[in-house]
Amino acid sequence: MTTITPVLLCGGSGTRLWPLSRKSYPKQFVPLVGDTTLFQASAQRLSGDGFGAPLVLTNSDFRFIVTEQLAEIGMDPGAILIEPEGRNTAPAVLAAALWLEKSDPNGLMLVAPSDHVVPDAPAFRAAVQAGAKAALEGELVTFGIKPTHGETGYGYLELAEDPESFDAQPLRLNRFVEKPDAARADDMVKAGNFLWNAGIFLFSVRAIIDAFMAHAPNLMTPVQTSIDEGKPDLGFLRLDPQAWGEAEDISIDYAVMERADNLSVVPFSAGWSDLGGWDAVWRESNRDDRGVATSGPATALDCDDTLLRSEDGGLEVVGIGLKNIITVAMPDAVLVADASRAQDVKNAVAALKSKKAKQATAFPKDHRPWGWFESLVIGERFQVKRIMVHPGASLSLQSHHHRSEHWIVVEGTAKITLDDEIKLLGENQSVYIPLGAVHRMENPGKVPMVLIEVQTGTYLGEDDIIRYEDVYARD
Amino acid sequence: MTTITPVLLCGGSGTRLWPLSRKSYPKQFVPLVGDTTLFQASAQRLSGDGFGAPLVLTNSDFRFIVTEQLAEIGMDPGAILIEPEGRNTAPAVLAAALWLEKSDPNGLMLVAPSDHVVPDAPAFRAAVQAGAKAALEGELVTFGIKPTHGETGYGYLELAEDPESFDAQPLRLNRFVEKPDAARADDMVKAGNFLWNAGIFLFSVRAIIDAFMAHAPNLMTPVQTSIDEGKPDLGFLRLDPQAWGEAEDISIDYAVMERADNLSVVPFSAGWSDLGGWDAVWRESNRDDRGVATSGPATALDCDDTLLRSEDGGLEVVGIGLKNIITVAMPDAVLVADASRAQDVKNAVAALKSKKAKQATAFPKDHRPWGWFESLVIGERFQVKRIMVHPGASLSLQSHHHRSEHWIVVEGTAKITLDDEIKLLGENQSVYIPLGAVHRMENPGKVPMVLIEVQTGTYLGEDDIIRYEDVYARD
Repeated sequence: MTTITPVLLCGGSGTRLWPLSRKSYPKQFVPLVGDTTLFQASAQRLSGDGFGAPLVLTNSDFRFIVTEQLAEIGMDPGAILIEPEGRNTAPAVLAAALWLEKSDPNGLMLVAPSDHVVPDAPAFRAAVQAGAKAALEGELVTFGIKPTHGETGYGYLELAEDPESFDAQPLRLNRFVEKPDAARADDMVKAGNFLWNAGIFLFSVRAIIDAFMAHAPNLMTPVQTSIDEGKPDLGFLRLDPQAWGEAEDISIDYAVMERADNLSVVPFSAGWSDLGGWDAVWRESNRDDRGVATSGPATALDCDDTLLRSEDGGLEVVGIGLKNIITVAMPDAVLVADASRAQDVKNAVAALKSKKAKQATAFPKDHRPWGWFESLVIGERFQVKRIMVHPGASLSLQSHHHRSEHWIVVEGTAKITLDDEIKLLGENQSVYIPLGAVHRMENPGKVPMVLIEVQTGTYLGEDDIIRYEDVYARD
Repeated sequence: MTTITPVLLCGGSGTRLWPLSRKSYPKQFVPLVGDTTLFQASAQRLSGDGFGAPLVLTNSDFRFIVTEQLAEIGMDPGAILIEPEGRNTAPAVLAAALWLEKSDPNGLMLVAPSDHVVPDAPAFRAAVQAGAKAALEGELVTFGIKPTHGETGYGYLELAEDPESFDAQPLRLNRFVEKPDAARADDMVKAGNFLWNAGIFLFSVRAIIDAFMAHAPNLMTPVQTSIDEGKPDLGFLRLDPQAWGEAEDISIDYAVMERADNLSVVPFSAGWSDLGGWDAVWRESNRDDRGVATSGPATALDCDDTLLRSEDGGLEVVGIGLKNIITVAMPDAVLVADASRAQDVKNAVAALKSKKAKQATAFPKDHRPWGWFESLVIGERFQVKRIMVHPGASLSLQSHHHRSEHWIVVEGTAKITLDDEIKLLGENQSVYIPLGAVHRMENPGKVPMVLIEVQTGTYLGEDDIIRYEDVYARD
């Protein structure tokens, strides 16, 4: 049996699930439904018999989140390609294919977004296997979701005839249909031979490269060059920014699928959602008999068809007498919306951006290669942070012009460099970093190290930093 | 002109404005409408020409909040009587009268709750002055609010005849009417000769004592004894708990007003609310032309008749497409309720109590005689607090069995006692308090002192404290 390499696309950063999904930490990395994140669930769904190690496409900001989240579920990435900027799906898929061509040109690749929900993973793996024979024969196989309603947010796949059953046998595909208006969507659902386009594809490396050469030849040179000139960096491959910038910003649907004639579709009816808004999250959540879904310390009193979530901070959330309301509370932001207006959440993010609220894009926890930090309180001339450093990780050797810092270790062990001195601090030990001192914080231990940092100074911005050495190659 | 002593009742702790009003810090001490707290606004409303220093009745938990809030607006209390427990309004009013009898038996007293809103303070003072002549002649004067709707939450005052005008001349009062049902309330509003009972009273000290002797003689001995046996304490008078406990728990309406026949009422139509629920707060707030009122960092997108408040912590709150929704976000709790269900907020508090959520009763900031503290983060074996100490204030001399503490001063100057040593710490200086060490924190300066405390230990409860000396006479 040919090995299928999962190609996970996770460079996106949607705003429709704000405040839980933000530019700095988007929805694929969040446990929106269930205990694992959507990215982790996607990687696990496409693992086991017949699947190889995943190839991940992401961007520079998310690269350490990817490795951290894979490590949490005990998976190794086959490779991580870093897109210098988002250029839509066609260049990303081609880059994956050209990368895989070097090692396994006859292999199969399964391209999937990493922010979808597919509750029945075994059923989905069976659907993938059902498409494998056609893919090996050179077909470009898509996966079509049986529509449950006239959704205007998805593209559709038109079959040559009604699928007689949804037992996952590949069918001939007539054509791709772009996102319709509501009337057209209803017509298509009634017609019976239209499926939702889930944006999931299975093909051989050779077949998709051939298809790009036939239908989007202009992408070949820039994407090939971006790989050839790419820079390996701490286990990632950074695609060459200049070549990558010359690749057309275009989706694989437009660039290839709508032009190809070797298309098959595997119908799938066991449940799928792209979680395109909080209303979709509500539908995918466990709801009681009045349609109420809660998570975290949330209490619904006499509510109907309502989503009440308290995330990541222990805020007590109480809803009273609500109908069709979505409430998502975070330690720094709260969304309350009528469920019918879920698609307008992106407008809220735009409104916050225009008033320069950091909550529009930044998460309370700022994830870095070495761990994360969060600001606990900010005063006029002081700031208190909680800082978590992964075992074995190390911050850059640095100094500040405008602030001094007190560090108190509260969990684990820290190795501290302070000018010419190096010392180990255990729980309940502290050190003072005077203004201007060259210093570094490391976690030499086997468990996470947490310390409390109290900064004092006239300017406390993150940009007051001079880096002397950095294992993560940052400026 | 006789001086009128304002008697401010502020021992109550309602739950209908949770999460902003909690048992530990109830609504009268919160800036619900405008920049000052309701208590401060009440004190200011009854000040100036003709008014003496206020006599405040409160309980032990709130005594330092009272003095702090009066100091903030530059007012001195005439006296502060501490009720050992709440016994409703009759014992409180009698205690105030018996206290004032000692210095000014012929004076007038104006009894008012401290959690009401009266936007037009000059109009209210004029109404009080309009009742003064009748009060000096021995009448018990109440204030009747012109009803705007058939409210079932208030008692009513029945006049002998329709008030011809609301120009604040005292009228004869037929009787007190208890809270009606909705139909009866509508009938009374239509009838025209019924006013809302605002629970505000004006009488001479002698007249109200006479009325208690006539209509509620059983209260006289316990209340007089509670004063005679009361203990002066740091400027407060703690009423004697045993005697106080023997006073009947009864309202002044039942005990006196409904039995007396020397009643007058001054009609008042310039605006009043008891802020008995979030819907009332919404009505008293500045609303835009779609009926939306926001406060703090709150953004309403396409909402109608909605209250969006972000309190005391900078959470960004966004509402989208809401109608008749109340949202109040605090750093530790969020309420989202249909406006028609505002009276059910008390059920929410009960639900939180039954699940032992501290947010049911405790405020994020814990107010103490010396200032306040708040917990910034709590871990398994550590806690970080922000502590604010008023100028001149001092914590108790204390030690802990189970925790050590790091203190870092971030604003002002601290005077630290550590075993036999005393030292001054300025901004950006720190000290380590080992487990078991006897220590004290003071603010010797003229500006507030803020420090960050990082506690480490196996048990971090507030009850791990041994107090050696305490200027506030606590155990």
